Amino acid sequence: MAPFINLALEPIAEKVRHLLEAGDQESIRSLLLDGHASDIADILELLKEDERLAVFNLLPLNKAADVLDEVNTETTIELVDAVPDSAIADMLESLPMDDAAEILAEIPEKRADEIIDLMQPEDAAEVENLLSYPERTAGRLMNTKVVRLKAEWTIQQTLEFLRTIDSETETLAYLYVVNGNDHLAGVVPMRKIVTQSPSIRLADIMETSIVSVPVSADQEEVARVVTQYDFIAIPVVNETGRLLGIITHDDIVDILRDEFTEDIQRFGGTEPLEGEYLATPVNNVFRKRVGWLLVLFVTEMLTGTVMRHYENELQAVVALSFFVPLLIGTGGNSGSQATSTIIRALAIGEVQFKDAVRLLWHEMRIGILLGLVMGVVGFGRALLWGSPIPLAFTVAFALLAIVLWANTIGSLLPPLAAKLNIDPAVISGPVMSTLVDATGLIIYFTLAHLIIGI
Amino acid sequence: MAPFINLALEPIAEKVRHLLEAGDQESIRSLLLDGHASDIADILELLKEDERLAVFNLLPLNKAADVLDEVNTETTIELVDAVPDSAIADMLESLPMDDAAEILAEIPEKRADEIIDLMQPEDAAEVENLLSYPERTAGRLMNTKVVRLKAEWTIQQTLEFLRTIDSETETLAYLYVVNGNDHLAGVVPMRKIVTQSPSIRLADIMETSIVSVPVSADQEEVARVVTQYDFIAIPVVNETGRLLGIITHDDIVDILRDEFTEDIQRFGGTEPLEGEYLATPVNNVFRKRVGWLLVLFVTEMLTGTVMRHYENELQAVVALSFFVPLLIGTGGNSGSQATSTIIRALAIGEVQFKDAVRLLWHEMRIGILLGLVMGVVGFGRALLWGSPIPLAFTVAFALLAIVLWANTIGSLLPPLAAKLNIDPAVISGPVMSTLVDATGLIIYFTLAHLIIGI
Repeated sequence: MAPFINLALEPIAEKVRHLLEAGDQESIRSLLLDGHASDIADILELLKEDERLAVFNLLPLNKAADVLDEVNTETTIELVDAVPDSAIADMLESLPMDDAAEILAEIPEKRADEIIDLMQPEDAAEVENLLSYPERTAGRLMNTKVVRLKAEWTIQQTLEFLRTIDSETETLAYLYVVNGNDHLAGVVPMRKIVTQSPSIRLADIMETSIVSVPVSADQEEVARVVTQYDFIAIPVVNETGRLLGIITHDDIVDILRDEFTEDIQRFGGTEPLEGEYLATPVNNVFRKRVGWLLVLFVTEMLTGTVMRHYENELQAVVALSFFVPLLIGTGGNSGSQATSTIIRALAIGEVQFKDAVRLLWHEMRIGILLGLVMGVVGFGRALLWGSPIPLAFTVAFALLAIVLWANTIGSLLPPLAAKLNIDPAVISGPVMSTLVDATGLIIYFTLAHLIIGI
Repeated sequence: MAPFINLALEPIAEKVRHLLEAGDQESIRSLLLDGHASDIADILELLKEDERLAVFNLLPLNKAADVLDEVNTETTIELVDAVPDSAIADMLESLPMDDAAEILAEIPEKRADEIIDLMQPEDAAEVENLLSYPERTAGRLMNTKVVRLKAEWTIQQTLEFLRTIDSETETLAYLYVVNGNDHLAGVVPMRKIVTQSPSIRLADIMETSIVSVPVSADQEEVARVVTQYDFIAIPVVNETGRLLGIITHDDIVDILRDEFTEDIQRFGGTEPLEGEYLATPVNNVFRKRVGWLLVLFVTEMLTGTVMRHYENELQAVVALSFFVPLLIGTGGNSGSQATSTIIRALAIGEVQFKDAVRLLWHEMRIGILLGLVMGVVGFGRALLWGSPIPLAFTVAFALLAIVLWANTIGSLLPPLAAKLNIDPAVISGPVMSTLVDATGLIIYFTLAHLIIGI
């Protein structure tokens, strides 16, 4: 538990810096000793590289390990790089092996192998086992040190057994019962262990209809199941139903955060990064972005084709071109508003493909209201710029039509993507702008043709 | 636990529909009885309104209550509307009072008051107490039925006490110890209760440095603390430190989801909706969007001013205007890519204001790479359209400069917003597009002036 809670960490980092300059290592140790690892990690990240390393080296081994588990990828790499293999191996030993595996996955493979070689054979085997599962699967996230109870045990026997387990073994609110083949047979809430009579057998009180996930399950599927049913943890089994480990609530929160990060990046028009932003090399970020940017660029070329098509009209009334950015910008903005709301409603299951018609009807009514407001304001602005009345009317009607059109496709494309098993977030703001641009111009020039008569 | 896990729910909904037509109510009951409330809620949402109501009425009271807690707002309103007050009151009695309060907050206040009047006085007082706290605060979310242990108790006494509590009282992995004034004095892991000798006093094993949140704390702050420290639950206290309740992991996951929904809506250029999308009336959605759309519209008018300023150049070389949407569109897309990544990195604390210079340096290098690619492709495209070489060069250099510029402001504005305590997500895709549009045109026409010499 953390005495630093609700305190700003900057002043503590400042104090640490001063103590470091004064060479007062003992005071730093006593200042940080009671702190929560996650707070110490934040403090380290506020320091300069050499200060960070000096403070990290002052931490007792257990604390250093917990802090290493909490710092961001960039700092992990930096700290591991500056500390000898054997010290890192000792630190990893003191962590749950799923956390150790996560740290090892962040550093270069060769170095990771050297560190694993220095770990206790049992822990080394455990970490290698975890690392053998693909990233982003249940196998990679599970804690294999899980209590395995037997159905024939009494509460009394169970309590005696629990006194023998080590502190690294996960014991949350639920305990799992396995049969002779280590197959998952039941689950018992800790509460029942505490409140039932010592002579009762687990077989008589355990719940036998158990939700588990296969070891190969994608982490997002794991998070979906756990959050759907409000679980604290979920057991992981192999193909034959053998209990391999459990995934706990803190991993689920991390998965949800990763998933959100992916969604907002995709909605911003980029393929999701695999790691933290500043820890991702410029080349990698470039590769994640250039694809969409080129696709959108090529699509956007259609707007040039449309404008060339209306070259004579533009030549006749140059003022027509003044309104082009305003019109297509507003269409893109309105489409982005619609699609961001609907993408999220799809992601949390509030709406589905079957609701497409209702979504459309909702967005069209919103689009008419927004389009009317934009049309009136645009009409006034055109007159203020001294545009002739027919041009002002053209701009006004074009705004109404473009906003309505943007909301129409903004409400239809995301559920369609979901139906095709594509992440609806690919219908990003940039995709919406680009789609609305060319079609919006066609609407504009057609109206100009009809109203101004060019 | 749910036997439906990993099963598609549509076929079950279809089966329920057939059984309903056949009037076979008993089969529907036995089909759904073992299902998890969250699955039954999803099945109900797949049915038509009259079918939904018929099936809901078949559920036993406890199950109906759990299902009511799981359906979306729209369905909650619909079901509550069709069921008599007294039946709703009975259902709410069987839920934890924080969930009952949540349901009551979703329906019209007058109806909610009538239902509360029919509840047991103790529960009614409890619900009214919860509803007296502002929405989105710790007080609104807490479960007040929390185990309160005394420090002087032995493990044995604690175990005897735990046997007397009712099943609605939260008992997760941690139990809380209070002193005579009900002030939070310590926390004991369930594990220690189970494994320590019966004669040991709680005072000797409890952890006394406890993280709690004040009852008035914003829900996002609660979620931040719980996820920062990987807690399963967190106690809620009043100003004097008195234990009022606890907030559990499932509420935290809901808060994280709400928070992210707000972020992506804001990033899409709209003020966040307060409830679910389809349950929000068109007028409300309109009001949440029209403000930003108008602000962006007015800002975007600058592009018209810029274009008017270059009227003579446009008159002389109409082809200049063909590239306008392509240039400003690409700038907006690139800016949106940068800002979506950085907004999220700020939200999860990966980067902070102090990293602004590093963010800028990262994004400028990415911008140069992306700008070069776009410049080369744009140059080729301009030549293919038969543009003269000076115009093609203008387009190419403008693309490089605009992408670089977009990435520059895309990397600087979000941390600046964070520094000013504004949600960085207000630097939305639409805001980026709009900011880049006018400035991008100035860059373009300036380059045209220099290169083409008009």
